[in-house]
Amino acid sequence: MSGNRIVVLSGGIGGAKLALGLSAVLPDGELTVIANTGDDFEHLGLTVCPDLDTLLYTLSGLANPQTGWGRRDETWTFSAVLESLGGETWFQLGDGDLALHVERTRRLRGGESLTRITARFAECWGLATRLLPASDDPVRTMVQTDQGLLAFQDYFVARKCAPRVVSIRFEGAERARANPAALEALASPDTKAIIIAPSNPYLSVDPMLAIAELRDALGVAVAPVVAVTPIIGGAAVKGPTAKIMTELGIEVSPLSVARHYGGLIDGFVLDTADADLRDSIDVPALVTDTLMSSLQDKRSLAETVISFARSLRSPAHAASAAQ
Amino acid sequence: MSGNRIVVLSGGIGGAKLALGLSAVLPDGELTVIANTGDDFEHLGLTVCPDLDTLLYTLSGLANPQTGWGRRDETWTFSAVLESLGGETWFQLGDGDLALHVERTRRLRGGESLTRITARFAECWGLATRLLPASDDPVRTMVQTDQGLLAFQDYFVARKCAPRVVSIRFEGAERARANPAALEALASPDTKAIIIAPSNPYLSVDPMLAIAELRDALGVAVAPVVAVTPIIGGAAVKGPTAKIMTELGIEVSPLSVARHYGGLIDGFVLDTADADLRDSIDVPALVTDTLMSSLQDKRSLAETVISFARSLRSPAHAASAAQ
Repeated sequence: MSGNRIVVLSGGIGGAKLALGLSAVLPDGELTVIANTGDDFEHLGLTVCPDLDTLLYTLSGLANPQTGWGRRDETWTFSAVLESLGGETWFQLGDGDLALHVERTRRLRGGESLTRITARFAECWGLATRLLPASDDPVRTMVQTDQGLLAFQDYFVARKCAPRVVSIRFEGAERARANPAALEALASPDTKAIIIAPSNPYLSVDPMLAIAELRDALGVAVAPVVAVTPIIGGAAVKGPTAKIMTELGIEVSPLSVARHYGGLIDGFVLDTADADLRDSIDVPALVTDTLMSSLQDKRSLAETVISFARSLRSPAHAASAAQ
Repeated sequence: MSGNRIVVLSGGIGGAKLALGLSAVLPDGELTVIANTGDDFEHLGLTVCPDLDTLLYTLSGLANPQTGWGRRDETWTFSAVLESLGGETWFQLGDGDLALHVERTRRLRGGESLTRITARFAECWGLATRLLPASDDPVRTMVQTDQGLLAFQDYFVARKCAPRVVSIRFEGAERARANPAALEALASPDTKAIIIAPSNPYLSVDPMLAIAELRDALGVAVAPVVAVTPIIGGAAVKGPTAKIMTELGIEVSPLSVARHYGGLIDGFVLDTADADLRDSIDVPALVTDTLMSSLQDKRSLAETVISFARSLRSPAHAASAAQ
């Protein structure tokens, strides 16, 4: 079988774990990760791309294994001095992490695209995975809360997800062009599976699906689309997914996630803790251990998801894909 | 005697040493330092002000005592990571140092003046000295060399002063307004002495004197103006002063420096190594040890220079100052 590519849509920490597992079990160059850019923001005059960075660190083996974000062996002198100057330190920027933001910002100002810059960084760090921002145009996740309309990092980091979420929107998404390389990867006959990582559907995956070209490409893809649940036993593995679902009036259940992706997915991966829900899912569902602690967990889940996806046809899209 | 202010015109390391001595012997708030901004440059999208920074670090006790520039207890993670990303690392930026540049750049972009930003930083770090950039407008030292016209840091840091200097010019100086606070300090009746620090006359002091308002203010100041030699026994204490003088066809001697400041100074401070030149200087000259190794050296020189300045009248300027 020539062409055995897997494409993953990923947010930060949870998605990066599965991406790492996939990169470990696939031959070099066969994995493409499309990354959420809705969390990106301007901080201290620098363009920070949290999900892209987490993916860069994780896939290059430089990630901090304790936090899941940031670098291992990080130092914090910059932040300490910035604080002594009365600067803004609510968003933690390690000294090494800062190099990524400074160099990226410099290149963006010089007219390079985020895609090209990310590719360059990935090359410098020897990534065997193709890492693509969902768009080179700004898409900014904004959270309408009981404390007003908040930029994502204000909600997520500065206010620690405490405000009650009323609705979420993605500024710029309606004007944003999808990354052409991402569209090409989704449409390629070499692509054997498209995986929606166990990222927050509302905060990490929706900003990508809000880009019409990307959503449409997913809808007509020949390769089967499989989503992995970020909800296990009525709770999120990490982060505010469950809290947000509750606030939005959505039942905290993998069923809700599967329904959220309804029409886009050809298969769904449930955790063993939710095995009893398998028959309630509208698409073929696989039950497996989805919690990824060790690298072995990540590899196992990656292999299981790939096998599952390969076992699926993509009947929902076969017609439109043949057009 | 009410009002006992001293004003110093200073470049980086050498000037900062004398400024530190002066700040140690003067009551809090009595020292004003006017700093060269000709070395300032944009690097990695950040505005770096080497002389202001050296003065900030030195006067706050945060300076690296080994190098004379940068911070003590500095870390270098940023630079290591930047290098791994293929970024420009010819100009050494420590992690803590970077905070100064990032926060300054952010504030400059927000419309704050360099004067105000510097004052804020000085306040944050508890400086008892007033630190003023010579101008809020860009003045950029450019060095015409046998390798072409070079921006100062390209000449000074990247090429380690190796190119032969043909001439030096200060871009923007003819349009630059002097810092109004600097003009006020120079003209104030409370100012009892104006000291030109033992900085490089051609690279560190001339960029300030190239600002017409500043040069004129020095010319009509009521307070005596005293320059301290940066040349001892036919050599510079530090840096490329002697090399540049040779390349410009200027004898490497304190006499040349005194002549360079001719018409502006009312007194000159020579090193004991050059005591024999005392009578060849056109203005009253004091001979003393000018090498500043220990803090005690700096204090001693500061006290000696202040006493010397107080002993001088300012006959050359008395007439115009009385206008």
